[in-house]
Amino acid sequence: MIQEISSKQNSKIKYCLKLHQQSFRDEEQKFLIEGDHLVEMALETNSILEIYTLKQRKVIPDNIPQYIVNEDVLRKIAFSMNPQGIVAVCKMKKEQPIKSNKILLLNDVSDPGNLGTIFRSALAFGYQDILLTNKCCSAYNEKAIQASQGALFKLNLLKKFDLNSLKKNGYQIIATEIKGSVTLNSFKPNNKHVLILGNESRGVNQELLEISDVRVRIEINEIESLNVGVAAGIVMHEFSK
Amino acid sequence: MIQEISSKQNSKIKYCLKLHQQSFRDEEQKFLIEGDHLVEMALETNSILEIYTLKQRKVIPDNIPQYIVNEDVLRKIAFSMNPQGIVAVCKMKKEQPIKSNKILLLNDVSDPGNLGTIFRSALAFGYQDILLTNKCCSAYNEKAIQASQGALFKLNLLKKFDLNSLKKNGYQIIATEIKGSVTLNSFKPNNKHVLILGNESRGVNQELLEISDVRVRIEINEIESLNVGVAAGIVMHEFSK
Repeated sequence: MIQEISSKQNSKIKYCLKLHQQSFRDEEQKFLIEGDHLVEMALETNSILEIYTLKQRKVIPDNIPQYIVNEDVLRKIAFSMNPQGIVAVCKMKKEQPIKSNKILLLNDVSDPGNLGTIFRSALAFGYQDILLTNKCCSAYNEKAIQASQGALFKLNLLKKFDLNSLKKNGYQIIATEIKGSVTLNSFKPNNKHVLILGNESRGVNQELLEISDVRVRIEINEIESLNVGVAAGIVMHEFSK
Repeated sequence: MIQEISSKQNSKIKYCLKLHQQSFRDEEQKFLIEGDHLVEMALETNSILEIYTLKQRKVIPDNIPQYIVNEDVLRKIAFSMNPQGIVAVCKMKKEQPIKSNKILLLNDVSDPGNLGTIFRSALAFGYQDILLTNKCCSAYNEKAIQASQGALFKLNLLKKFDLNSLKKNGYQIIATEIKGSVTLNSFKPNNKHVLILGNESRGVNQELLEISDVRVRIEINEIESLNVGVAAGIVMHEFSK
């Protein structure tokens, strides 16, 4: 279905604008993406509900409504100044049961750029189930989506989880900590594990540290800590060997 | 020396404001930092010329002028909404001769957050000489400074360098490339090397690839590439073993 919309007052355009608010995104379980690369990734995973574009795109399946809009309207609904002529409304994925051996737990990661970057690395290194504590920033924040480079669509994000029961089910619980007693380079994880990364300033919280079987640190010099996105990448790369 | 400034029209305040422009920073070879952590790092390396603060700070050496300002004035000269009550004018470090065996070359890294994050990791993993090609974003961009967490002060940044002469002097030139023929996990660098990381979209340019002795790739799945800050962290960690 292809249709033209020229007015910013159109109810569909107003709906898209409301999706700029996190609360409305959560309520509707929908979010916006923009740019060719993200749209491509979203198409692969059947995440797109409708598309707003400057000119008809032939690669879009017929069952996805395409709305042709002018530059003014597109800029209005886009987050960035350069949405590459395309914005799409996507549906959030429902939480799926955990099915992988390697799980990532993000404990209150608050910067959306960091969160998205971690998603990108997680997919790259085979961590498909991602547990998020309550104070993590939203995975559907526009900066997180951008930084994830579409990895978001291929991950299973869970906000409800029980770490103790995962532990009982044989998952080794590994916290990363600046003062961890075990160095990353001397440590080999069990095949089945939960890797925990913490908040940018506070690190992994006490409760999670106490449940952990081991606290691992990356050996560094001259500086207190690494960026959490970098730390996550280094540990996941190491554990994927 | 301690002095009060209450007017935004004061010439010193106006000077600070002009330091918000990259061109003026380059001209004056000065830049602004804010917050306790950065000021502490800058003090350690004698980089601070003067300090603007809400109330007198006793830890500041006597030879550094302290200007006591009100919240309005401080907010005016700060970049962020929360400068933690302190802003300082710092001097840029002069380029020093290369003295380390491990050198990092950043080829047109354009995002200031990525650049700063890479500085932070570089210091952590012992890369103290950093070569920057012309189209890298400024190391003194406020976001780069923030992301570097002060690592900037302890690094030797060079914009003028001759890779061919480094190569002749026995440095192994290692480019990271998505399609690199050698995997990171199978590669051991010479002790003396230059590690090249490329632009966020285009990677390492052809000219640099051709000078390189080896092109290394990080083995990843499901996604085209990693964030350049993460990739840099992973490779530097690996090479620091």
